[in-house]
Amino acid sequence: MNFLEERIVKEGVVKPGNVLKVDGFLNHQMDIGLMEEIGREFKRRFAAKAVTKVLTIEASGIGIACFVAKEFGVPMVFAKKSKSINIDGDMYVAEVESFTHKNKNQVIVSKKFLGPQDHVLIIDDFLANGCALQGLISIAESAGAKVEGLGIVIEKGFQVGGKIIRNLGYDLQSLAIVDSMDAEKGTIQFREQ
Amino acid sequence: MNFLEERIVKEGVVKPGNVLKVDGFLNHQMDIGLMEEIGREFKRRFAAKAVTKVLTIEASGIGIACFVAKEFGVPMVFAKKSKSINIDGDMYVAEVESFTHKNKNQVIVSKKFLGPQDHVLIIDDFLANGCALQGLISIAESAGAKVEGLGIVIEKGFQVGGKIIRNLGYDLQSLAIVDSMDAEKGTIQFREQ
Repeated sequence: MNFLEERIVKEGVVKPGNVLKVDGFLNHQMDIGLMEEIGREFKRRFAAKAVTKVLTIEASGIGIACFVAKEFGVPMVFAKKSKSINIDGDMYVAEVESFTHKNKNQVIVSKKFLGPQDHVLIIDDFLANGCALQGLISIAESAGAKVEGLGIVIEKGFQVGGKIIRNLGYDLQSLAIVDSMDAEKGTIQFREQ
Repeated sequence: MNFLEERIVKEGVVKPGNVLKVDGFLNHQMDIGLMEEIGREFKRRFAAKAVTKVLTIEASGIGIACFVAKEFGVPMVFAKKSKSINIDGDMYVAEVESFTHKNKNQVIVSKKFLGPQDHVLIIDDFLANGCALQGLISIAESAGAKVEGLGIVIEKGFQVGGKIIRNLGYDLQSLAIVDSMDAEKGTIQFREQ
């Protein structure tokens, strides 16, 4: 087990309905030392890539993306979620339909901050069905930027998001891939990587 | 002028309606070097305080709060915004009414992450009317925690938020206080501190 899997086993809580709560260190309270370690690990995994921008989506991706951007010495851009449809022409917009809810959301990034010269590393905390990530890829492609890779902290390997993005040919790296969870026993099965 | 005021003058854009756009380095694209400098400056200003938790609110406060928490060597907790009213009993909830919009929002923090033993430093990017900040103070007080101070990156000094919070006796430190702006001339007047 790597440092993140160990932390998940120690402090993550498995709830019924395949819910994994990691709000004590990742997405409500944040352990900054862990964030720094995650930043260094993504730098190691994408060391060969000439990243110019780290791209994430509000809200819980922001902290992690900050420390990844710090390691690469590049700016971080976070996409905004919006339900409104009145966006002026200065924005890249991706319409994202949730697999699990009925709602549609727009993912928005200002055209000032992404362009054809950019090599983008996309970062997020969780990957399940991958709707948000598909929106971020769509935005990077709209900008003419190159998606150098995607770094995810926890992937739910039993949902389709990871498969879709790997099938599309992207270099997707997840620090922990959960293949199954048992809420009754409180156990988590990680994929060997 | 301090480092932040210099950056605002160099890259901030004044728009009609007292709007100051700093999305190139603070709240859409983030300059990580600047975030680190902001973290060190808040550590310097609140050095005498025995801070145990940094508290902010999603989304654009998160990046700044991460680097402040790093300087203090403590966890960062970010409050979530919600429109729903069905919150279970494990949450501190503050109902916050906007001064400018008609809507009410709930600001939510899990009871697991704040308690009477905590000394809290509240961090946010902008202070105008201070509604979000009032919600964060309310949550810290509900938890029985001590609010050691509030650190703001940019305060709009011509709006009431800063006055209210200082009148309540809190130690509020803003790295830049904008007293007036002129969209036509593109000028910004900072308060002498």
